[in-house]
Amino acid sequence: MQIAIPQLNYKTGDIQGNCTKIIAAIQKAQQSHAELILFPELAICGAMPQDLLEKEEFINECRLAIEKIALQCTHIAAIIGGPNLDATNGIMYNSAYFIQNGEVVDGVHKNILSDYDIFHESRYFIAGEGNTAIRYKNQNIRIIFDEYEAEFIEKTDHFVVCMGMTPFTTESKKTKKQVFSALAQKYGKNILAVNHCCGNTSVLFDGNSMTVNFKGKLTCLLAEFAEDFQIIDTNKLGSLPPVPNICEDKTALTHKALVFGIRDYFEKHGFTKAILGLSGGIDSAVVAALTAEALGAENVMGLLMPSRFSTDHSIADAQALADNIGMPYKIIPIKEIYAQYLNALRPVFQNEPFNVAEENIQARIRGMLVMAMSNKFGYIALNTSNKSEAAVGYGTLYGDLCGSLGVIGDVYKTDIYKLARHINKEREIIPENTITKAPSAELRPGQKDQDSLPEYSQLDAILKLYLEENYSPDNIITQGFPKDIVYKIINLVNRNNYKRAQIPPCIKISKKAFGNGRKYPY
Amino acid sequence: MQIAIPQLNYKTGDIQGNCTKIIAAIQKAQQSHAELILFPELAICGAMPQDLLEKEEFINECRLAIEKIALQCTHIAAIIGGPNLDATNGIMYNSAYFIQNGEVVDGVHKNILSDYDIFHESRYFIAGEGNTAIRYKNQNIRIIFDEYEAEFIEKTDHFVVCMGMTPFTTESKKTKKQVFSALAQKYGKNILAVNHCCGNTSVLFDGNSMTVNFKGKLTCLLAEFAEDFQIIDTNKLGSLPPVPNICEDKTALTHKALVFGIRDYFEKHGFTKAILGLSGGIDSAVVAALTAEALGAENVMGLLMPSRFSTDHSIADAQALADNIGMPYKIIPIKEIYAQYLNALRPVFQNEPFNVAEENIQARIRGMLVMAMSNKFGYIALNTSNKSEAAVGYGTLYGDLCGSLGVIGDVYKTDIYKLARHINKEREIIPENTITKAPSAELRPGQKDQDSLPEYSQLDAILKLYLEENYSPDNIITQGFPKDIVYKIINLVNRNNYKRAQIPPCIKISKKAFGNGRKYPY
Repeated sequence: MQIAIPQLNYKTGDIQGNCTKIIAAIQKAQQSHAELILFPELAICGAMPQDLLEKEEFINECRLAIEKIALQCTHIAAIIGGPNLDATNGIMYNSAYFIQNGEVVDGVHKNILSDYDIFHESRYFIAGEGNTAIRYKNQNIRIIFDEYEAEFIEKTDHFVVCMGMTPFTTESKKTKKQVFSALAQKYGKNILAVNHCCGNTSVLFDGNSMTVNFKGKLTCLLAEFAEDFQIIDTNKLGSLPPVPNICEDKTALTHKALVFGIRDYFEKHGFTKAILGLSGGIDSAVVAALTAEALGAENVMGLLMPSRFSTDHSIADAQALADNIGMPYKIIPIKEIYAQYLNALRPVFQNEPFNVAEENIQARIRGMLVMAMSNKFGYIALNTSNKSEAAVGYGTLYGDLCGSLGVIGDVYKTDIYKLARHINKEREIIPENTITKAPSAELRPGQKDQDSLPEYSQLDAILKLYLEENYSPDNIITQGFPKDIVYKIINLVNRNNYKRAQIPPCIKISKKAFGNGRKYPY
Repeated sequence: MQIAIPQLNYKTGDIQGNCTKIIAAIQKAQQSHAELILFPELAICGAMPQDLLEKEEFINECRLAIEKIALQCTHIAAIIGGPNLDATNGIMYNSAYFIQNGEVVDGVHKNILSDYDIFHESRYFIAGEGNTAIRYKNQNIRIIFDEYEAEFIEKTDHFVVCMGMTPFTTESKKTKKQVFSALAQKYGKNILAVNHCCGNTSVLFDGNSMTVNFKGKLTCLLAEFAEDFQIIDTNKLGSLPPVPNICEDKTALTHKALVFGIRDYFEKHGFTKAILGLSGGIDSAVVAALTAEALGAENVMGLLMPSRFSTDHSIADAQALADNIGMPYKIIPIKEIYAQYLNALRPVFQNEPFNVAEENIQARIRGMLVMAMSNKFGYIALNTSNKSEAAVGYGTLYGDLCGSLGVIGDVYKTDIYKLARHINKEREIIPENTITKAPSAELRPGQKDQDSLPEYSQLDAILKLYLEENYSPDNIITQGFPKDIVYKIINLVNRNNYKRAQIPPCIKISKKAFGNGRKYPY
């Protein structure tokens, strides 16, 4: 059977826009005489529609769009994902609609709902009960939503379509290929897995729709982080030449993902220009380089905001960075504003010693200046905090923690260094001094990050076990880390849930990012 | 049967603290010769533990605490809620443990999990399958978790225990009484409903544990927003004298709830002192009055931060408020800081006209001064934004939208006026001029809220239908509101999801507050 796999960038909530894209793909597939076309889970409304699914008018619009799409399917059958409300009893399923001869003729409901991390499917859907293969052109097509539903595959199935969207992580591609290979071999079936290719502010879906043949071999791989369109012949899946390997390098994947995430966020929101503070440090340098790659260097404005505690190299390094990137920048010193704050506060602060209050004032003045530029000229403020800082609360709310999108909020500091080297692979973009100098917030004389935090290599290793692997403190200590440091770090993580409740959404690249997928009381 | 109902303020995550409270209640009940004692759903770990439930060490600690509690039950049986992990298969239930003769002898699992609004139970728990009555002293005790599980009540049951915690809303008390009355009559059973009495930063549980007899009559009502302890005799529930009515006045309930919410938040976090900006307007006035009631006037610091756009009455009204309350205040003019910002930005702003950038600078200077005082002296910054503003994005991120707790973030502006009148019932606390003048942000000359927003009475009516009743735009228009205004407001609500993602948690008093219970893409 000739099957078209369009891999599209669906926009969440934009049912009409998605419908137009879907119809264009159907017309293209019909022109190529494909017999079946596959669209993934919730294609009609886009990934992660969340509480839009609680709006009856939204569900109705999805249904009308599906019917409009069906009318286009005169010479092709289609499988397409969407919410499916039974108006008689108010029960809603997460369904695959099967369209044939211009109408919806059948469907399969998702049986095993996802309620982990960023998913809350039981909030909206009722689980289906059972799964019947679709009969089309004398073939039994088994539709499943993810690997957990593989139990429904039967001997009599001719091939398997997996509708499920797979959120990107730096491990997800490798895992997905391995899982589908193992399933295809176990059940002896060809599997066609169609994915979204889109960003969703925080969550990315990386495309890489794929077919794996019954021997477990990857036989077709669609583009990574890009739209694509392929027609495959199910009769030839056993003998196709091997496809290029999936990219598995973590740093390269992080780079691609963040650039895609930034670009998608700006495109979906209709924004074109970004702004960020350039401190001369590695975090803002990496964010600037990634954003320039995503939006064009001319669309990224850097703000250099030296204070009386800034070292000479911080300005020089930031200027060198901007010059290397070819991005515009402005210098706005904060000395006078800072002095004016101290002046205004003197009657109440009196002779209290310098402490975090004065440090935060500097960070907040910078945040305010970035926001003032954003408000005046329409730049979108990017947040440059990394995951290590967010974890332990090393950052100032309403200061360096402001912004619309956290570009590297799911990247540990040690991985930021790898990313910087990767960015510099062909030529120096991030100045060498920015990479090699000791990290500092420069909010008091001679301050260094390591004055208040353990070495980043140790910090990140412990954080990863605690946050991503969900290890208990005892289990982390068993891995060879000092007890006092483990407890210090975990206490910092838990004490800063309140702070993370007010930071910008970040682009998720790990299996546990801060944000909606991690819910703790505070 | 003599049954003790302790109504306790459990602290989420503090298993040892909760255990101590529970054991004290058991000892008190045993001294009074009660035969059974009831603790609600998840009592051992506190309400809404969220992803703490994904930590094995947390679940183990809960289990050990339950076993420690069981040892105390030498002369009494106990029903107590907690997570219940079957280590052999990793399945976790939300359970009621039944304790007798010093050990856990039985249990009932929650069958119908809650996955709406603030609840994500399918994230953690597997639904039980079936519900068997507990047999104790020749009686069949039916344990249910909420009214949805009433279907399990059987004719042979002697009485019903409802474990479920009921989140407070201004409607929840009335609803709860009506629901239990109807169920008690329908099934002809006495119902004993035990509730938490605690805050959880955003979500409140208001106590009012109750018994309703088989005739549907409320026969026992525990304290509202306070700990309590009652012993009831199930044989006498039919003939008990009627109890005082449940408070149903929405404004009075809002008042009590917010004061309790503030006090509980401060106590649980170990904070004692609050700070907020006093603008002379009604929102900050109401928050100041409520906070003074919760913490003592001497523990609430007001900051008056006049700008060149402040009217004379704004300072006079704020001072009158502080004097009426008896709270300390400081005046820190922001004129010079503002001028210094404009000065620093002049080279980049050049001749751009005054716009929202300059307005936001003022709001952010104020936010920063409040935060500076917080950082210097340990005051906790309170947010004074109301629900109407939060809905339409009428507020400045990192400015007036900063703070640790949104005291009135779930209260519409029109209800703030009612609250102000209620606060002034016995004597003028909030100055009359604050209540009667037209609301203004005072960020440009002559500015009034109604320059950019519809009248609050109309705005709030539309918002309530859209946010809380989940009406479609068409349905709202059908209620008689102008189409252009309805669409304008709904567009504002939807366009500001991004902004609300970074505002402080607010105390929830309605069935749909902004925060974790409302999830939209942005």
